[in-house]
Amino acid sequence: MDIAVVNTWLITFQGKNLGIIENGALGVENGKISYVGSMEGFNYKKADIVIDATNHVTMPGLINAHTHTALTLLRGGAQDMPEIEWMNKGLLPLAMHMTPEDFVLGSKLGVLEGLKTGTTTFAEYTVNVTDTVENLYLPLGIRIVATEMINEVGYSRAPLKPTDLYEFDHSKGENELKRANELFRKFRSQEMVSCMYGPQALDMISLDLLKTIKEQAIEQNAKIHMHVAQGERERLQITGRYGKNKSTVKVLHKNGMLGSFLLAAHCHDTDEKERELMAKEKVSMVVCPSAIAMIDGIVPPVGHYIEIGGDAGLGTDQAPGPGHHNLFQEMRTASILTKTLHRDPTALPAWKALQLATIGGAKTLGIDKKVGTLEVGKQADIITINLGYLHLTPIVAQPFKNFIPNLVHSTNGTEVDNVIINGKVIMRESKFLDIDEQTIIKEANIRAKRIFESATEDWKKANSKLVKDVQNGWL
Amino acid sequence: MDIAVVNTWLITFQGKNLGIIENGALGVENGKISYVGSMEGFNYKKADIVIDATNHVTMPGLINAHTHTALTLLRGGAQDMPEIEWMNKGLLPLAMHMTPEDFVLGSKLGVLEGLKTGTTTFAEYTVNVTDTVENLYLPLGIRIVATEMINEVGYSRAPLKPTDLYEFDHSKGENELKRANELFRKFRSQEMVSCMYGPQALDMISLDLLKTIKEQAIEQNAKIHMHVAQGERERLQITGRYGKNKSTVKVLHKNGMLGSFLLAAHCHDTDEKERELMAKEKVSMVVCPSAIAMIDGIVPPVGHYIEIGGDAGLGTDQAPGPGHHNLFQEMRTASILTKTLHRDPTALPAWKALQLATIGGAKTLGIDKKVGTLEVGKQADIITINLGYLHLTPIVAQPFKNFIPNLVHSTNGTEVDNVIINGKVIMRESKFLDIDEQTIIKEANIRAKRIFESATEDWKKANSKLVKDVQNGWL
Repeated sequence: MDIAVVNTWLITFQGKNLGIIENGALGVENGKISYVGSMEGFNYKKADIVIDATNHVTMPGLINAHTHTALTLLRGGAQDMPEIEWMNKGLLPLAMHMTPEDFVLGSKLGVLEGLKTGTTTFAEYTVNVTDTVENLYLPLGIRIVATEMINEVGYSRAPLKPTDLYEFDHSKGENELKRANELFRKFRSQEMVSCMYGPQALDMISLDLLKTIKEQAIEQNAKIHMHVAQGERERLQITGRYGKNKSTVKVLHKNGMLGSFLLAAHCHDTDEKERELMAKEKVSMVVCPSAIAMIDGIVPPVGHYIEIGGDAGLGTDQAPGPGHHNLFQEMRTASILTKTLHRDPTALPAWKALQLATIGGAKTLGIDKKVGTLEVGKQADIITINLGYLHLTPIVAQPFKNFIPNLVHSTNGTEVDNVIINGKVIMRESKFLDIDEQTIIKEANIRAKRIFESATEDWKKANSKLVKDVQNGWL
Repeated sequence: MDIAVVNTWLITFQGKNLGIIENGALGVENGKISYVGSMEGFNYKKADIVIDATNHVTMPGLINAHTHTALTLLRGGAQDMPEIEWMNKGLLPLAMHMTPEDFVLGSKLGVLEGLKTGTTTFAEYTVNVTDTVENLYLPLGIRIVATEMINEVGYSRAPLKPTDLYEFDHSKGENELKRANELFRKFRSQEMVSCMYGPQALDMISLDLLKTIKEQAIEQNAKIHMHVAQGERERLQITGRYGKNKSTVKVLHKNGMLGSFLLAAHCHDTDEKERELMAKEKVSMVVCPSAIAMIDGIVPPVGHYIEIGGDAGLGTDQAPGPGHHNLFQEMRTASILTKTLHRDPTALPAWKALQLATIGGAKTLGIDKKVGTLEVGKQADIITINLGYLHLTPIVAQPFKNFIPNLVHSTNGTEVDNVIINGKVIMRESKFLDIDEQTIIKEANIRAKRIFESATEDWKKANSKLVKDVQNGWL
């Protein structure tokens, strides 16, 4: 046996509930889970590594089902500002000054933050995701679901009024689809990489190209990962292009684009009927509650979607806005926002938030046969969480386990102390084994200083609300 | 000089904005702040303790303006359940099995959690708060604003229907008022203790006693700390007792109970007009966003209240429900919930959240002449926050300080590494100096195990939703 985790509470997510095993043990061999069960009769004498997880919870690694980690170098760069300014006056004036190397380092920073707080799979959504796979995920041995972004518009849209229809550049789209197919060709057989097609959003792509993508996705037995119904700006394009009473979901439905092959991100501009249709058609949903609340002031509709039987997962989107890549923070935020949206304190309870961040995310990404639960034969993506902190005290198991709600409502993510991916220990007792985080922090600070300095003129010219906030001594 | 903090970003909260000083320094002598300013010309060679706060923010200690820490032993005991069940079927069946010693240990646990995450003043609201002052706050040297709870109803109300009017027991109220006066007599001259009168809520107390309390508060030059407009159950009592169109705020107003002497907690069952009246009358408001969201599914109206010029602060209420006593968590939660309530991402920005948790809280508690800002002559309640973590990287100061939003949206509270109260170092490099936290964790676990076990029958009999959740394998 390579690794044994002993004396622990297991949350296996086997069956319909949490599948809790008290006084549990877990074995790992050749990258896979070889034992899940009681300590009784578990022979771990010959294990190479023994992790004593007394007063710890052991559970599947968390799954970040939607993220753009490259932007982590711009953390704190765009928030507390009007939604209409966020992208063009907040983010872009800074992002335009990033080099390809900055993007890779930004990703590294975001991924390490995620790892530290228990994320073992990252669904990266970006341009040239192949770079990220090769330069970051494969060398570090971290699981990635890689989505190559495809759109036919590009930044030429920036000066347009919201009601001006974007012009589609079909050769741009075709090129990006080629890049996506290249991604599949390169990594299809890699254990640690899954691939997806990423048409950015319905306002950014023609129906023709979307249908071509669908054909190729079905041929590859892969999913399409798409931003769906992101709000006002998208809606203006959709009604302008397809007709007054049209919406993203309606247009997708009419064109055969709703199905189990679709992973729809955000969806905050959908109504109940549209979500019922999506659930019926087996569309998966991924929501990023912190991001959408911070950027749009909106609570994404995940509470309703799981209520009606839809599959859903959680993501962190990008650091500027929500501020983090911490799925513990995200579980808590999802729960508390959903409660206030429905004015119902029973909405999205702790245990459902835990499901969203594990098996829920795995299902939405189509990797639930591999990961997302603790089951013999699955890939060994495992985390342990130390409950021995003041802020998680007391620990009680009878007449109910108070640490289940505390895992969501009281943790901050720093309690994760062991992270195992594909049977390899990445973090042991809260320390990375093969990653020098201080060097990365230093390099990130140097790069960010250069980016922000060279962006100063553009940022001031863009003249967002934040520029005034600086003048007023707030920022 | 006793303490020098050097090479730091100071957030002083002097003036109307954050009062940021770059490359700043701070001196402490005889419990008070003796220097706040630039490093240039700051002579700290003779300081007993020098704290190098490079890449740190130094700011006033946080102020928890409303908390019942004694219940921390029940963390994880009542949440994700209907509001109507929370108190009587969730909390009480457990709390009934707590001894007075359990309450003190619970407080200790909550206070240490708060200290670790930068809180230096706790506004404790409880019965027999004198015990808490003497057994916990004075020995540890922590600042307390102590409110003695007064009500004329007690637990006899538990079996009543919500529409049955509570009967007032005037002798109970008189006794508790005596206890409150005793609190003032004992601690009035203590530097580290301020006192308040705590009529629990308008449904729990007669107008006669309330008026007597007001007279005595004004005589003592003290404030009244009262739960105001807490929701459905309170409203039913108020309309039943005072008439169909009455509300808590209206009755308080008519009886001269709105004024700068009043600190009103929660206030989520107020409307805009009532809040405008409260602001006009200089009532202070304290809100506990995590608690009210978790227990009631409601966002407290702090965004509106500060918008119209009202004074407000933040509190953590009790651990069961929100799950924590961490004001960093609370600043972030306040901001994100307020944004979604108003569907406005500019609502309650990071810098206003920082004000709420410092000078805002100090004003609401009437201790802003003593603490809440970094100013020469004020008591030295100071924290430093280490920005050198992955999740706070990068640190950028030009063209704006990205660490200001990150302090609220990206921190988790564990970044606080030095805590000074009244000029005494309580925590140094994230470690308590005179407090053995492991012993307290151990004792808390033993006590909680006993409480939960002996409460098992009562808890099951109460038959809340959580009982079914256990049966279903969720909890």
